[in-house]
Amino acid sequence: MSETGDEGTDVYADRRKQAATRLREANANGLVCVPSRNLQYLTGFDEEPGERHFLLAIPAAPDPDAENGPVMLVPALYETRVREETSVEDVRTWADGDDPVAAVRRLLADVGLREGRLLVDDTMWATFTQDLRTAAPDATWGLASEALAELRVRKDDAELAAMRAAADAADATVTDLRELGAGAVGMTERELATWIGDRLSAHGGDGVSFETIVGAGPNGAKPHHGRGDREIAAGEPVVLDFGTRVDGYPSDQTRTLVFDGEPPEEYERVHAVVREAQAAAVDAVEPGATAESIDRAARDVIEGAGYGDAFVHRTGHGVGLDVHEEPYVVAGNDRELEPGMVFSVEPGVYLDGRFGCRIEDLIVVTTEGCERLNRTDRGWR
Amino acid sequence: MSETGDEGTDVYADRRKQAATRLREANANGLVCVPSRNLQYLTGFDEEPGERHFLLAIPAAPDPDAENGPVMLVPALYETRVREETSVEDVRTWADGDDPVAAVRRLLADVGLREGRLLVDDTMWATFTQDLRTAAPDATWGLASEALAELRVRKDDAELAAMRAAADAADATVTDLRELGAGAVGMTERELATWIGDRLSAHGGDGVSFETIVGAGPNGAKPHHGRGDREIAAGEPVVLDFGTRVDGYPSDQTRTLVFDGEPPEEYERVHAVVREAQAAAVDAVEPGATAESIDRAARDVIEGAGYGDAFVHRTGHGVGLDVHEEPYVVAGNDRELEPGMVFSVEPGVYLDGRFGCRIEDLIVVTTEGCERLNRTDRGWR
Repeated sequence: MSETGDEGTDVYADRRKQAATRLREANANGLVCVPSRNLQYLTGFDEEPGERHFLLAIPAAPDPDAENGPVMLVPALYETRVREETSVEDVRTWADGDDPVAAVRRLLADVGLREGRLLVDDTMWATFTQDLRTAAPDATWGLASEALAELRVRKDDAELAAMRAAADAADATVTDLRELGAGAVGMTERELATWIGDRLSAHGGDGVSFETIVGAGPNGAKPHHGRGDREIAAGEPVVLDFGTRVDGYPSDQTRTLVFDGEPPEEYERVHAVVREAQAAAVDAVEPGATAESIDRAARDVIEGAGYGDAFVHRTGHGVGLDVHEEPYVVAGNDRELEPGMVFSVEPGVYLDGRFGCRIEDLIVVTTEGCERLNRTDRGWR
Repeated sequence: MSETGDEGTDVYADRRKQAATRLREANANGLVCVPSRNLQYLTGFDEEPGERHFLLAIPAAPDPDAENGPVMLVPALYETRVREETSVEDVRTWADGDDPVAAVRRLLADVGLREGRLLVDDTMWATFTQDLRTAAPDATWGLASEALAELRVRKDDAELAAMRAAADAADATVTDLRELGAGAVGMTERELATWIGDRLSAHGGDGVSFETIVGAGPNGAKPHHGRGDREIAAGEPVVLDFGTRVDGYPSDQTRTLVFDGEPPEEYERVHAVVREAQAAAVDAVEPGATAESIDRAARDVIEGAGYGDAFVHRTGHGVGLDVHEEPYVVAGNDRELEPGMVFSVEPGVYLDGRFGCRIEDLIVVTTEGCERLNRTDRGWR
């Protein structure tokens, strides 16, 4: 993401202004972010959470056109990077050896956020939320998503371009995996995961967007198996769930492949059911459809085929700077889909002790229906 | 880490018992962990934090010999993995579409933790701490580190063996980097970071323990620069800070190398000062010395050479399952070092707009003094 749009506007300053307005609408007095995807969305600054106090405070806007004083407090050793990489003008620092809680208290007092209703990053660590409660004992607390989720849930063109590029890198890696074919037999899941990471980088991706999942044979039946020391055998279905990032935005796709030989009994049927369920869910995507109706569309196919009990998770999750975010494609979520929303459609069937099968693409809701970001063959060869 | 020690004891069950005792000593009624390094320490279960409610609750021990009912609540799709990979007997589940907060409330009620003083993971996300406050409105709250930091800060032999192996993988990668030599010139920082990741894997490491830092020329002067698109030039000092994991335990080391050609003016002097500071700090490590005295030993050398203002961070941090944990080697930390503690010694000098120089090894405190886990040449060639 370039920091300035086509007309030279600062997209991050614009997002901060929109956030300030959303805060007011959410009856909140302010927002406090730590290194997180919210911070990245609002400033462009991409950093893993750490143990040092590092925060962005945004007061709610009295005036929608005012940027209204966002302020950052960062460890001194981050100051140069923060000034270079963000457009936040009021950046304060504290040094190792100082008392960071005192610095937080001063900052909150300066921007009028030691009381009222404050929203904190959903992923803010307890060590920081407890310090904030110490620094602002009279405040009440909510979650940043109350104000920011609606802002983040519809992706703009630059965000979609990044996600398309990240999806292309994942798709090119699937093509590489098919070319590897029988060459994968004898590799451990861990070795193949490393190989996948290399191919994602070679195709322009920056790292992995989550720990690559390689689930061979019975390991694939554990939907949240990571990767281990099992050697991939001929005829074994292998669940391959991975993604990378481009310009900060992730991809996330799954194919279940048999690298060589003939698959086990019942696998072809299971794969066909999952593929049909995935297609039915994608077909159901259009503006105005509810998130849960997409889950229902996939589940109906799998239940109809007699595998309902083996589909043990929701059908999908929204994807943006966070790999898991709104909208969640799950029973009970009646929110209506809107153009610009991006989410995964990933039904699966897991036969304990035998194999698993999952097929996943990312989907963008469009004005007419939807667009798939992942386009590789969904078959098992 | 194998789950059972030499005598067939379950090290994780033993740690849970010790934790229950520590809880009582910390005047806490119980502990709640989410996927975190604490959870990994207490159960062996290694998982990234996610948006689904996943917790381990341990009541404080009335009897130090009783395991006293640790209980887990996990998403249904994790059940098989949790039962296979942990020895916790009481594992409950909730399914996508259920109300997880109601499930949390029932679990806390069952184990008697809806009131009293509860400790939560230091890294627990605000979304979960707020739900816990809803589920246990009369409880008061503290941080898990109050009870667990003392348990985790001294590493046992199995932990040290894992950290030695992780350090060896990092050291072997430094050797590879020196062999690469002029071949690094023209690579981007990002490309070299990918190359380093591959070498760490080839030497037996599992992934990277943090995002690899490659800071070339002026980028090296930003101590928390990650890696970017700058091409490495001949004669440019490059800060190379990276690590991997073995059996869950990380390495973390830094060398600052010039891959080809002659370094800039003043660099040789700066490097010699940093190297001397690092040696002085390591020499000062022995049981009974304070953490801040190690920081002082490094700082004295750098201040004496006139670069005090350019050493903008603490001298080091403890390393265990968390790459940053107790003991922090920083002014104001008067805790005494004890055998089995592991921390980094990593002074640096950062000349804005020109270059940076940092040298880092991991150190284990021994009964006689200390042992360096990283042993590669600390020179800049």
